[in-house]
Amino acid sequence: MDYKDYFQGNRDKHLNELKEWLSIPSVSALSEHKSDVKKAAQWLADTMTRAGLENVKIHETKGHPIVYADYLHAEGKPTVLVYGHYDVQPVDPLHLWQTPPFEPDIRDGKLFARGATDDKGQLFLHIKAVEAILSQEKELPVNIKFCVEGEEEVSSPNLPIFLEEHQDMLKADVVLISDTSLLEKGRPAICVGLRGLCSLEVALHTANTDLHSGSYGGGVPNALHAMVSLLDSLHDKNGRVSVEGFYKGVLELTPEDHEEFKKQSVDENKLKQDLGLDELFGEEGFTFAERTGARPTLELNGVYGGFQGEGSKTVIPKEAHAKITCRLVGHQDPQDVLDKIEKHINSHVPTGAKVTVVQMEKGNPFTIDPSTPVLQKAADAYEHVYGTRPVFTRDGGSIPIVETFSRVLEAPVVCMGFGLPDENLHAPNEHFNLENFDKGLLTIVDFLKKV
Amino acid sequence: MDYKDYFQGNRDKHLNELKEWLSIPSVSALSEHKSDVKKAAQWLADTMTRAGLENVKIHETKGHPIVYADYLHAEGKPTVLVYGHYDVQPVDPLHLWQTPPFEPDIRDGKLFARGATDDKGQLFLHIKAVEAILSQEKELPVNIKFCVEGEEEVSSPNLPIFLEEHQDMLKADVVLISDTSLLEKGRPAICVGLRGLCSLEVALHTANTDLHSGSYGGGVPNALHAMVSLLDSLHDKNGRVSVEGFYKGVLELTPEDHEEFKKQSVDENKLKQDLGLDELFGEEGFTFAERTGARPTLELNGVYGGFQGEGSKTVIPKEAHAKITCRLVGHQDPQDVLDKIEKHINSHVPTGAKVTVVQMEKGNPFTIDPSTPVLQKAADAYEHVYGTRPVFTRDGGSIPIVETFSRVLEAPVVCMGFGLPDENLHAPNEHFNLENFDKGLLTIVDFLKKV
Repeated sequence: MDYKDYFQGNRDKHLNELKEWLSIPSVSALSEHKSDVKKAAQWLADTMTRAGLENVKIHETKGHPIVYADYLHAEGKPTVLVYGHYDVQPVDPLHLWQTPPFEPDIRDGKLFARGATDDKGQLFLHIKAVEAILSQEKELPVNIKFCVEGEEEVSSPNLPIFLEEHQDMLKADVVLISDTSLLEKGRPAICVGLRGLCSLEVALHTANTDLHSGSYGGGVPNALHAMVSLLDSLHDKNGRVSVEGFYKGVLELTPEDHEEFKKQSVDENKLKQDLGLDELFGEEGFTFAERTGARPTLELNGVYGGFQGEGSKTVIPKEAHAKITCRLVGHQDPQDVLDKIEKHINSHVPTGAKVTVVQMEKGNPFTIDPSTPVLQKAADAYEHVYGTRPVFTRDGGSIPIVETFSRVLEAPVVCMGFGLPDENLHAPNEHFNLENFDKGLLTIVDFLKKV
Repeated sequence: MDYKDYFQGNRDKHLNELKEWLSIPSVSALSEHKSDVKKAAQWLADTMTRAGLENVKIHETKGHPIVYADYLHAEGKPTVLVYGHYDVQPVDPLHLWQTPPFEPDIRDGKLFARGATDDKGQLFLHIKAVEAILSQEKELPVNIKFCVEGEEEVSSPNLPIFLEEHQDMLKADVVLISDTSLLEKGRPAICVGLRGLCSLEVALHTANTDLHSGSYGGGVPNALHAMVSLLDSLHDKNGRVSVEGFYKGVLELTPEDHEEFKKQSVDENKLKQDLGLDELFGEEGFTFAERTGARPTLELNGVYGGFQGEGSKTVIPKEAHAKITCRLVGHQDPQDVLDKIEKHINSHVPTGAKVTVVQMEKGNPFTIDPSTPVLQKAADAYEHVYGTRPVFTRDGGSIPIVETFSRVLEAPVVCMGFGLPDENLHAPNEHFNLENFDKGLLTIVDFLKKV
């Protein structure tokens, strides 16, 4: 049975189906698209049913629904849970789109539409792979479950609760997610690390009013002086975070890790040039890929206080504000990190200042050992189709839901992405390279057979 | 000859004259009042002529006119140059005025109107004092000149040029200015120090675009980290400015200075309470009055960069900005200070950052030795009328024109104010206490006789 022929023969039909789904503007962030989100969920459920999946159900949540389906007839075989999302990002700025975001268009071997690569297009591959095997072999080599949400682009507020409440229904031996990217064209990658995230706000107050710098300057605390002193205490001069205990739980890199990072290393000179930077900057002893993939950060995202208009104003500001986010790795605990930062801040309050800290988001880092058997099988499948073994990457970004799946279902998560980094996800002219559409279908079929 | 009787007898007439002047809305900042400013200058010139002054002339400038007048018949006697201004501040917010700003109203022994104390009312005293002596004695004990501008409230853009160009005409042995305040009711003060001012802006750039903190965090410079590090380097932990050479030209306080400051000392506990401050903050070894009156400052007036909206945003900002002003004292040179700060900044640029410094305003500090004979004579005049010797104060604010007079005319400047600190200058319900109107006239007459 040659799946290559099968998919080639059904290519137009598949692409037309996908285009139909991509035409539904399921923008989860905008309430005016609520019914479109629902419509996209219904389309998905219908397509799953047609593919031969069973127990298809649209589960309502406090927000947008979660679509479930399964096919559990491979007794004694492992169970694979596929996660994806059918909601999409908003489309602004609309005028930058070459073709309308919800009128899918194929040109230059790419399918252009909002959601083409993130994530309708990638999720669609899994349904069509299952459909293909069922149609060709009348049975699946594994048990399979689908759990597809409609709120990924708004930080998945209801999925963790759903996972907790439906642990039995969702129980699986491996979680399979296609929502990441190849390293570049022809170079597949399996993500084995995602950084966690936590965030906080710091407000600092001095006097009850802004003061005239002539009458008071030199005799009263200045909220901005206090704030820059406080914020500067958070790092040492080499860019290392100075908060006591911040690095607890960070995994030291092994020689093997350094080797793996070398494979995904970027050309640092080109990077500097692209970003208009004279120099990169980060912790000593690590490459750019290691600094962003395997090391935690504490970043100031916003700082403000006092006069911001044109010219000068002789004011002593009464308040200053800072917004901070951290990226976490290894076994760092977001709550523990937030508490330590808050403690650091409270013990560094400058004279005459009053400081308020508000803790906000918390997301755990995700990490999985590349030698995990199911990851090696995923690598085999990629190698079989792409002719090259994938790189195990650690990504600087955060997809908190990956860690939630891993933790709640106690199963390894395989991030098997088929996007490319330059496919404009979250931007105008999002697209999906059809080369990876074709290879993705074959890779998934091969993986399901190998598990 | 009892001037007390003279002024008492002419009080209503004088007040009615002043009310007429105060009715002219000579707001120099607003172009729609240009003709009113001119009208106020003409009114002044006419009144000076009627008072017996000679060579009265309205000098046009690039902005509003300067009114000159003199009476130079006291051969061998010193020449006193009186400076003042006939323009006023805008009146917003109008609805907070109890009576309209340009319909002068006397109640509770106070004359309410825009310009009542700043500066028409105070300048008026000098004209009436001269008129009184001339009418009673047919001659003046000194030579006198008046130089009255219409642009003080818009930073006197044309006066320094006028001074430079008319040095001979304005040549004087002492400059007399009534545009400051008593310490409080019944406690006269002579200002012997005003701080200078200089300002600059700092812009700091890193990458050519804001960057995602997931993909880049830890591997690239963050403009806000660089900015807080740079700004924090400007002070040490005790609030002292760390810029090399910043304190050059600052005069050390003598035991006599400390004594004089004690006289103008404020209740620091009450100050803290009023300002909602847990603690005052400033250079060690100085009181609040000394810190604001005799010490220079470097203040951050505004700092901003990155995200300022609600919630959090995982962005690494590409730029950050700071606005800085300094108050200067003694012989500090604003240009020298700006250059030193720029040098400090350029030698503290953090890795990966590019910094631009823009120098802005420059105003010299003013300082005069209280033991200067003419100041002691002014003190004698105050004591004669008020029954108490004035305090020699050093003010934290900046009135650059005072230093300009002192420097260009090479003459001591006597700041002989008759306002009170709570007379709402620049605010709604500006007023002038008539007690000081009456005593001011007598003090000026006495001073002119003593010089």
